[in-house]
Amino acid sequence: MTIENLSSNKSFGGWHKQYSHYSETLNCSMRFAIYLPPQASNGEKVPVLYWLSGLTCTDENFMQKAGAHRMAAELGIAIIAPDTSPRGDEVADEDAYDLGKGAGFYVNATQEPWSRHYRMYDYVLNELPALIEERFPVSDVRSVSGHSMGGHGALVLALRNPERYQSVSAFSPVSNPVNCPWGKKAFSAYLGNDTSEWAQYDASLLMQETSKFVPALVDQGEADNFLEEQLKPEALEAAARQSGYPLELNRHEGYDHSYYFIASFIEQHLSFHARYLLQS
Amino acid sequence: MTIENLSSNKSFGGWHKQYSHYSETLNCSMRFAIYLPPQASNGEKVPVLYWLSGLTCTDENFMQKAGAHRMAAELGIAIIAPDTSPRGDEVADEDAYDLGKGAGFYVNATQEPWSRHYRMYDYVLNELPALIEERFPVSDVRSVSGHSMGGHGALVLALRNPERYQSVSAFSPVSNPVNCPWGKKAFSAYLGNDTSEWAQYDASLLMQETSKFVPALVDQGEADNFLEEQLKPEALEAAARQSGYPLELNRHEGYDHSYYFIASFIEQHLSFHARYLLQS
Repeated sequence: MTIENLSSNKSFGGWHKQYSHYSETLNCSMRFAIYLPPQASNGEKVPVLYWLSGLTCTDENFMQKAGAHRMAAELGIAIIAPDTSPRGDEVADEDAYDLGKGAGFYVNATQEPWSRHYRMYDYVLNELPALIEERFPVSDVRSVSGHSMGGHGALVLALRNPERYQSVSAFSPVSNPVNCPWGKKAFSAYLGNDTSEWAQYDASLLMQETSKFVPALVDQGEADNFLEEQLKPEALEAAARQSGYPLELNRHEGYDHSYYFIASFIEQHLSFHARYLLQS
Repeated sequence: MTIENLSSNKSFGGWHKQYSHYSETLNCSMRFAIYLPPQASNGEKVPVLYWLSGLTCTDENFMQKAGAHRMAAELGIAIIAPDTSPRGDEVADEDAYDLGKGAGFYVNATQEPWSRHYRMYDYVLNELPALIEERFPVSDVRSVSGHSMGGHGALVLALRNPERYQSVSAFSPVSNPVNCPWGKKAFSAYLGNDTSEWAQYDASLLMQETSKFVPALVDQGEADNFLEEQLKPEALEAAARQSGYPLELNRHEGYDHSYYFIASFIEQHLSFHARYLLQS
């Protein structure tokens, strides 16, 4: 397996780099970005935070806009930002921003025409970490975070695979996709109309039944245009109450759905993950 | 004069906002961005850092990518990011990225077809601050900074108007435009072939003759692809030696021309400006 380096930028004493590689899981060429803190240049194997972006994003949005490198460099944590869907001319798509390319929803599609490429759940859970841990000076100590659709992905990955992640956090996650328009549209297309298949990708349904508690932090802006119709943090809170999950969910007056919100609180998320990543 | 609010995002307890207004100087409608720190919501008049962006940029690049809001909020400094040229269908343009829209070079054009709209020097020096100081909770205490073409603009504005700015800084500035391809192309078009007209917009020529010293900080990446052909920091250093200008110019191994370099050192620039902005 070969990977190709596409760009390199020194940042806060470490390195931001983009790579492309052929994904066997997704049956297409994929791009990802990595931030390697200065400690990784000194022979240390650093732990890794996986960042899952929201609708329409690529590997670039978080790296350029979140202002995360400063604290990642200070703490000695690598960050991986995968793309949000399979890519390429041969990959099925829709004109809509919330289905197809840029909208993989971190599920394994079972329906035509999506099932050949849209397997972002397996890609982020297995193939990408295996590649990262083979090729870069990182350990197998992982946490996961994300925004909106990516917050949904982060919560689902951690809740279903508590042995794989030290901690999970999310900004403005799609908390109960089986009950919101984005989730219903995407899950109908990717997973079909049997809604019993959807539950495995719904953070609230998973959280209300689990007994394995990965430390979890969620932040939500109260001026977020998508709050009531799409995000539904109250469903996640109800699920946590039901299972006794020690969820920390904070609401912030005036903040919206943008990267300005993420930037304002990313350092708190990195510090949260550091508590679990750096003790392992 | 009316200004229209186009967007608002809460950021680090303050507000990032975009506005449009009709510019009498540029004879077209212009957009700018402002970051107002939390202190500005408490009735304080905060000082202002003007940020001038580089080729191809708009008011958005710095606000989204520099990670400047965190320290601006901590220090209580507002930031204004104007666009990099006049805009609109009626404004002269070229296909090239380094002439016309996105490439105003912070000069007052005297040549056709540019002279009707391309007057970014006057716009940034006079019209924009007058508007900002009338409409927002800011003082008339100003500093100026910028990147590449905008670093050139910042240095020229401060060197020619030491009474208007408390301090100046630049990342990777076009330090000696009369002697580099970007500058020669733009100045020929905007100012004509009489090179004696160019000197008023050349930071090195201005610095070597001035006796009024605005505190000045310049940072330059050594892996910058434009370093030797376009930026020429050695010309600025030679000018400073000639006039005894107390220029602080730092070179940084491995850093390139990107916003990752700016983000890595923007907090040092904000702290530098704060020394002069907050004592006034």
